[in-house]
Amino acid sequence: MSTQPDTRFRRLREKGSRDFDLACSIIDEARMGHVGFAKGGHPYVLPMAMARDGNSLLMHGSIASRLMQSLESGLPCCVTITHLDGLVLARSAFNSSMHYRSVMIFGIAKPVTEFADKERGLNLLTEHLLPGRRADIRPSTRKEINATMLLSLPLDTFTVKVGNKPPDDPAKDLESHAWAGVVPLQLKAGKPVAAPDLRPGIEVPAYVRRLR
Amino acid sequence: MSTQPDTRFRRLREKGSRDFDLACSIIDEARMGHVGFAKGGHPYVLPMAMARDGNSLLMHGSIASRLMQSLESGLPCCVTITHLDGLVLARSAFNSSMHYRSVMIFGIAKPVTEFADKERGLNLLTEHLLPGRRADIRPSTRKEINATMLLSLPLDTFTVKVGNKPPDDPAKDLESHAWAGVVPLQLKAGKPVAAPDLRPGIEVPAYVRRLR
Repeated sequence: MSTQPDTRFRRLREKGSRDFDLACSIIDEARMGHVGFAKGGHPYVLPMAMARDGNSLLMHGSIASRLMQSLESGLPCCVTITHLDGLVLARSAFNSSMHYRSVMIFGIAKPVTEFADKERGLNLLTEHLLPGRRADIRPSTRKEINATMLLSLPLDTFTVKVGNKPPDDPAKDLESHAWAGVVPLQLKAGKPVAAPDLRPGIEVPAYVRRLR
Repeated sequence: MSTQPDTRFRRLREKGSRDFDLACSIIDEARMGHVGFAKGGHPYVLPMAMARDGNSLLMHGSIASRLMQSLESGLPCCVTITHLDGLVLARSAFNSSMHYRSVMIFGIAKPVTEFADKERGLNLLTEHLLPGRRADIRPSTRKEINATMLLSLPLDTFTVKVGNKPPDDPAKDLESHAWAGVVPLQLKAGKPVAAPDLRPGIEVPAYVRRLR
């Protein structure tokens, strides 16, 4: 095994970056990412909820989860977080592309074992996924925290790619009759749907309404 | 290397499926997925545009792309496509989760080498990413098609996971004062932004307006 993943930029270098603040902004806007690792010669890529805690990425799951156990065992992983921000419609299929912001993080995730750290990390995750939620629900019990694995992946080795330019067509294509431009895409929240067993009289709170 | 990836469902089995039509519906609603493979002992996960062609998943990229070359070399890959459909707010952090639809496809991607097949596949991709676009732009040139690699991954070995239930709280939590329910999430198109060099008089076409 080579000791370091290959994080060189080759093609489309102008889209590449190693800026930490840019990486953080991409992570902080995401609720989930895709975690990849290899086991028995086969790669696996799974979606997971995640949140940043300073210089680390936190991921959580059941202590019974194969994914969590695989990561805990010290397998190298790659976590990729991508925002698809738009369709870039050039005058040809060849020059068409997408607006996106993507960060790939490489490393080995370590379990957070100290109870107070784990509790804090899990609270941070809850609050990241929906700011305002933590204060509205009961604290997690010791049993719940013990049944949850929290993994921390250092934000040391990462690459960022951003595509955010208008279509770039060669001069000969500019006489095209086709429309060219960008169609922005964004993940948006819809109307909240109350649980069937919600007690009467409980209104949708401001921190949920704010998502729309 | 084990000959087959491990695709058994263990936890949350009720969310798991191997239904081909369900897998197709998830793929067909997506414009991109995350491709994972391992090289030199390190996993890599990259976002890619993709489209289904019958029983195969098509992915394309530059023939100069490291990613395409790695996949073309016959490395086993895992392509995961995920729709994040909502936040499931239970009365506790422990029981909170997400609505999602995810498909993981395992296999070895093969390059489509026959020119007519490749041309057809690339046209299918263009049309998938934005139905109506193909007829509005010039045909791709032979040079452009030759500069593009088209990979085909059979939809043979895959698993589907779907989370689409309301929060499921234990009886003791139902007296909570916290709101519980689901906040739907959806990727939505915004107002199209014309290219700075768009010829005057070209209006946003119906197939683009339809995305909103």
